[in-house]
Amino acid sequence: MLISKIIELLKKGNSNYVSSKIIKDINIENASSIESAKDKDITFLEENNIIKDSFASTKAAVIIISDNPNLINLTKDKLISTIVVKNARIAFAEVLESLYETNIYVEGINETANIHEECLIGENCFIGANVSIGKNTKIGNNNQIFPGVVILGDVEIGNNNIIHSNCVIYQNSTIKNNCVINSNTVIGSEGFGFIPESGRWIKMPQKGGVILHDSVEIGTNSCVDRPSVGHTIIGEGTKIDNLVQIGHGVKIGRNCAFAAQVGIAGGATIGDGVILAGQVGVNNRVKVGNNVIASSKCGIHCDVKNGEIISGFPAMKNKSWLRSSAIFKKLPDLVKKLRDIEK
Amino acid sequence: MLISKIIELLKKGNSNYVSSKIIKDINIENASSIESAKDKDITFLEENNIIKDSFASTKAAVIIISDNPNLINLTKDKLISTIVVKNARIAFAEVLESLYETNIYVEGINETANIHEECLIGENCFIGANVSIGKNTKIGNNNQIFPGVVILGDVEIGNNNIIHSNCVIYQNSTIKNNCVINSNTVIGSEGFGFIPESGRWIKMPQKGGVILHDSVEIGTNSCVDRPSVGHTIIGEGTKIDNLVQIGHGVKIGRNCAFAAQVGIAGGATIGDGVILAGQVGVNNRVKVGNNVIASSKCGIHCDVKNGEIISGFPAMKNKSWLRSSAIFKKLPDLVKKLRDIEK
Amino acid sequence: MLISKIIELLKKGNSNYVSSKIIKDINIENASSIESAKDKDITFLEENNIIKDSFASTKAAVIIISDNPNLINLTKDKLISTIVVKNARIAFAEVLESLYETNIYVEGINETANIHEECLIGENCFIGANVSIGKNTKIGNNNQIFPGVVILGDVEIGNNNIIHSNCVIYQNSTIKNNCVINSNTVIGSEGFGFIPESGRWIKMPQKGGVILHDSVEIGTNSCVDRPSVGHTIIGEGTKIDNLVQIGHGVKIGRNCAFAAQVGIAGGATIGDGVILAGQVGVNNRVKVGNNVIASSKCGIHCDVKNGEIISGFPAMKNKSWLRSSAIFKKLPDLVKKLRDIEK
Repeated sequence: MLISKIIELLKKGNSNYVSSKIIKDINIENASSIESAKDKDITFLEENNIIKDSFASTKAAVIIISDNPNLINLTKDKLISTIVVKNARIAFAEVLESLYETNIYVEGINETANIHEECLIGENCFIGANVSIGKNTKIGNNNQIFPGVVILGDVEIGNNNIIHSNCVIYQNSTIKNNCVINSNTVIGSEGFGFIPESGRWIKMPQKGGVILHDSVEIGTNSCVDRPSVGHTIIGEGTKIDNLVQIGHGVKIGRNCAFAAQVGIAGGATIGDGVILAGQVGVNNRVKVGNNVIASSKCGIHCDVKNGEIISGFPAMKNKSWLRSSAIFKKLPDLVKKLRDIEK
Repeated sequence: MLISKIIELLKKGNSNYVSSKIIKDINIENASSIESAKDKDITFLEENNIIKDSFASTKAAVIIISDNPNLINLTKDKLISTIVVKNARIAFAEVLESLYETNIYVEGINETANIHEECLIGENCFIGANVSIGKNTKIGNNNQIFPGVVILGDVEIGNNNIIHSNCVIYQNSTIKNNCVINSNTVIGSEGFGFIPESGRWIKMPQKGGVILHDSVEIGTNSCVDRPSVGHTIIGEGTKIDNLVQIGHGVKIGRNCAFAAQVGIAGGATIGDGVILAGQVGVNNRVKVGNNVIASSKCGIHCDVKNGEIISGFPAMKNKSWLRSSAIFKKLPDLVKKLRDIEK
Repeated sequence: MLISKIIELLKKGNSNYVSSKIIKDINIENASSIESAKDKDITFLEENNIIKDSFASTKAAVIIISDNPNLINLTKDKLISTIVVKNARIAFAEVLESLYETNIYVEGINETANIHEECLIGENCFIGANVSIGKNTKIGNNNQIFPGVVILGDVEIGNNNIIHSNCVIYQNSTIKNNCVINSNTVIGSEGFGFIPESGRWIKMPQKGGVILHDSVEIGTNSCVDRPSVGHTIIGEGTKIDNLVQIGHGVKIGRNCAFAAQVGIAGGATIGDGVILAGQVGVNNRVKVGNNVIASSKCGIHCDVKNGEIISGFPAMKNKSWLRSSAIFKKLPDLVKKLRDIEK
């Protein structure tokens, strides 16, 4: 794609185009990181010193930068075509999308798919090899269901969803629109509900369901359990990474982001815009307010108010945790001082 | 189901029926949580203040409560049918089981299943689409094996087991009776055994097997590895949640419960009745006694005696951990005091 | 296999044979642990007190020991055949490999495999039931691809690889030679890349790929994500356990070993020979030097120099962590002392 064509495209996009400078209007073949870019590549520059160091030696033909005087200054004397926008990451995302054709899977139902006759399947769907779809399932338009997916029956799937290979979707699951579920993830598996009785565990039947609202994305090898009654719910626009556990009856708000290996125990309630870093755990029935940020490995055992930034286990305010952690390292010195004073 | 019929059913069950009061013997359509119950629903009340608050506003037609004077008092003046039992959770479990028909999968072997001719398959089994079963596998009666399961050969499966979609069961695995293995879980994969030698890793072949005793349940996306020699063993009645790692050669006792994302390293021995909360880790070769309880994120690096309640990392007695954790938050104050004293 | 034949085999192997003593040259039927060995079994003795205690009562016919005066002394008066080598574990690995025939899967492509016509498949490959292979995939010689595997297209696989059941391999993945990928693992799934914009998450397309170099092994239910541009790379000889997350754009060196439930966030760089114990987390963009060892549950949030041994969260030197953790348990005593001094 010619640099001039990329600029046209960005002008119509959401990155807020500011200006550009073309050294030579060549055909761009690839998008690359600033370190590994070759002479027919496009790249972008983050407002981040580590990457800035790489700028001097980059071989890229064209670079997208944000509207920042330092960055503009840095690029102005170099023989590199430059595109200035308000949000360089969004511009780069748009370039990636248009530079690489998405693998277009042939519309249609593979002949090895095993679909129960009492199902409704909409238009323009791709249903891959060895997919199984059980009784009373309704699937809307423009869905892509990849090889090996099992949908057990009594499932509702809206429009424009992508369900990757070997996922399992249980009965009473609802997937609205524009969702992505990555490979080997399980939606609607039975919650871990057992009642202790005379030293044994009696099973609480899990008869509820799961609802994924619009634009939810879930990574690979993750689990969303169904509860005994009612629903486990994930709100619109929430993004969940790999190997994440969402317990039975959990309610998650809109536009959250949970990193890999997060675990949310049964019955917890998570607000809107909550960010949980990797390996964070949330205890059962805990309520986490809106826009809370928890740093990696945080263990949230109590309710958390809106907007708090928390860390550690048990979770505390991030600033307090940083201070206490710094002292933790020096506890031997502290003990020594105490002994000196005692003497 | 009429309220009067539900009462009859509970009298025959295991919740220990005490008494009941019927306002109007209507047909109950659903079981719900106390907050979301509608006027044809049954619910139950836990001895728990959070839920008690919800009682005033519930719309449920009938409520199951335990034989507790406070709860009986709370319900006596309200126009709601009431069923009093010793164990309200068990009663609710029994109601759920009878109110909702289990998806009955048609007995029989799907024509797309790929079963080696040197296999024995018992009576009344359901074997779903695209199941693969290898040589020398013996499967008893009344088993449900869902679509996409792969059983690699030399496997023994008893009676009344449910193996959910896309599970993989390796050679030398034995699954006794009444077990449930949820989707995408792998039983008998090779243990992580490598010998360091001149800066490289030499593989220790993993030729052992896995034994799951009666009534074991394992969640989704979990792993039970096989050892180099001997067996990895999970005792009768033990329940394991999602995304759990059971290392090679681990021995687990009876009636344990492990929450999501627990990891047990190779060669560890876990007693009977052990409860491990979410994200707990157990180091290799560690011995954990009977009835130990470890709270979430606990790291068990040393042997633990019977009956201990432990927390933190490295694991210590829960009470001690609570006290030390409370002080951890206040370490900056402590340091300040020390400085004041020094002056 | 006769004991004399086992000795011949070990002389040709890599354990460095020293000497042997045969009480009776019987036929060995099984390899077992020292505790559970029967009278026709071979076992081995580690330089480890726990196992030494088991020696007195073992029923094994023959035992492999390392060239250690204490062990030789321990065994000399007992009526047990003995094989002395420099490395007893490697000897035992070699015996296991020869004593048990590997399940030889019949060469050939199962008739239910779904292979796109624009693929190249080498010689002597096993391709199991219900395998799906997409367009433009090149597969070398002597590969074993087990039932239910999905390879989505544009994938390159070298020679002598084993891909276990229900794995998913995405486009732009390269798997070199002699790799093992265990069941339900996903290679090349899209990285978790989202750009925050006005309270929502905009997707950064993930158009890069994954490269696994020679002799990489990955456990079950693990994930290796692909980045937006460039490659996620795992170096030669690196071994990864179950339920591990390798984020997008991560670069891992040679001969590392990562235990179960480790998580490496996007963009991190790991050196050669790094050992990460169970449930360790590495923050995004962190650089971990060569031969670093991190103990279980360690949280690595900053760059780590070559050769360091680290523990805790935030990570610190292991020795320092041990000291501070010991004091952590006694914080209540410390507070009491401070109060006494204040008085």
